[in-house]
Amino acid sequence: MNETGEITGRTRVLGILADPIAHVKAPPGINRIARQRGRDAVMVPFQVAPEHLAQFADSLRNLKSFDGAIITVPHKGPMAQHCDEVSEHARAVGAINVIRRDPDGRLIGDALDGTGFVAGLAVAGIAIAGRSAYLAGAGGAANAIAFALVSGGVSKLTIANRTRAKAEALRDRILALHPGAIIAVGDGDPSGHDLIVNGTSLGMRPDDASPLDTTRLTPDMIVAEVIMVPEMTPLLQAAQDRGCRIHLGKPMLDQQLELMADFFGL
Amino acid sequence: MNETGEITGRTRVLGILADPIAHVKAPPGINRIARQRGRDAVMVPFQVAPEHLAQFADSLRNLKSFDGAIITVPHKGPMAQHCDEVSEHARAVGAINVIRRDPDGRLIGDALDGTGFVAGLAVAGIAIAGRSAYLAGAGGAANAIAFALVSGGVSKLTIANRTRAKAEALRDRILALHPGAIIAVGDGDPSGHDLIVNGTSLGMRPDDASPLDTTRLTPDMIVAEVIMVPEMTPLLQAAQDRGCRIHLGKPMLDQQLELMADFFGL
Repeated sequence: MNETGEITGRTRVLGILADPIAHVKAPPGINRIARQRGRDAVMVPFQVAPEHLAQFADSLRNLKSFDGAIITVPHKGPMAQHCDEVSEHARAVGAINVIRRDPDGRLIGDALDGTGFVAGLAVAGIAIAGRSAYLAGAGGAANAIAFALVSGGVSKLTIANRTRAKAEALRDRILALHPGAIIAVGDGDPSGHDLIVNGTSLGMRPDDASPLDTTRLTPDMIVAEVIMVPEMTPLLQAAQDRGCRIHLGKPMLDQQLELMADFFGL
Repeated sequence: MNETGEITGRTRVLGILADPIAHVKAPPGINRIARQRGRDAVMVPFQVAPEHLAQFADSLRNLKSFDGAIITVPHKGPMAQHCDEVSEHARAVGAINVIRRDPDGRLIGDALDGTGFVAGLAVAGIAIAGRSAYLAGAGGAANAIAFALVSGGVSKLTIANRTRAKAEALRDRILALHPGAIIAVGDGDPSGHDLIVNGTSLGMRPDDASPLDTTRLTPDMIVAEVIMVPEMTPLLQAAQDRGCRIHLGKPMLDQQLELMADFFGL
């Protein structure tokens, strides 16, 4: 929006690609950052089904008023295929969460969620270097976080996923980029780790199974969530009840939004 | 935008399709109407080149958060070809200025500019039924106004255009839809008509020729403009000097925005 808060013909358009989309949280945050930075830009929701993603990506190349988009579920993996360029980090992660449209129409993809997660921990005073980490999940968010945790210097990373092969594949992809990392494939038991991270969507719905065995949580553990709604997931509640320090999903979003705004050129 | 003025994942997206786009005036007006009506919707600029219009129209069919768009230069004619349904009125006019996306993805086109012009007259207390009208021009805006004047029941319409063949073609297209209408092709002399309308862009620049012979204007005439900038065109000034009632271009836009908002379901 311009300095009077209006959207005009000069306003640059940003999007968030998701399906479903009603729950996405980023647009008010990005629009607030644009206002704070004095940029005439606005983020709006783009709800596109997976089967129409390729077509929509092509149309974005030719939408001259468009500068970039956040990419979220279920498009984070597939959208990487439709970019003209993807960062090495995002290629390794196998998913992106932002695209930028260069003036020549090329779409550049990157993955900022893992970096945002680690930055959110840092802002909360939680350093990860030298600590051991347990990560539930091997999907999009978990992938990004796994790479960021290893890049951030955890002493050991254990990946636990319902489908074990996905955890093994993630481990192998991280090892390809970071050959010296110590990475295990685990089960539902988080025992023996300093930092416990839920990187699955389990906990968004009231009847979801727990992403890990909460009876094994101990007060020396820090338990962190990627889920933002509900703010207090059953996992975080159980962790708090057991005396763990908890870390909500929102700081990751806050840090990511700043990183995304930078990426969009805001 | 929602009741707190924020764009969220639930906000419905409207667009304005143009190329170039920096000059378009509608988004602040539509967004103001959406706020007034308590609707969580926002209009943003979609700049797409003519050669990419077909591709973009297809992608809009599959953009589930999208409800509709204003279509303006240079897309008003071509976009009609990419709609799944176009009103009989717009088909006759040969151009559209709005599309709506139905929940099943179908794009419905209509032309509201002429209706907006007549609605603007009505709001000013100027009824057209039974009155004779003289229209300068046979281009895009004049086309829409000519159809709307005839639909609105003028007793007679005279169309005057520098290229006479275009006026004759417009007359024939109107007669195909309204076989009983009385339509003449005229010259620069507006004598003998109740309502005089400039449907050309002559008057936007200081050195433009007059769209009609202003020495023939008489105080019983109402003289109306489509030009919005300048507000007081040389034609309106001459008409006022000769004692005519004048009607500015802006009410047409104001009424069109309301009609467009209705069309989008705001």
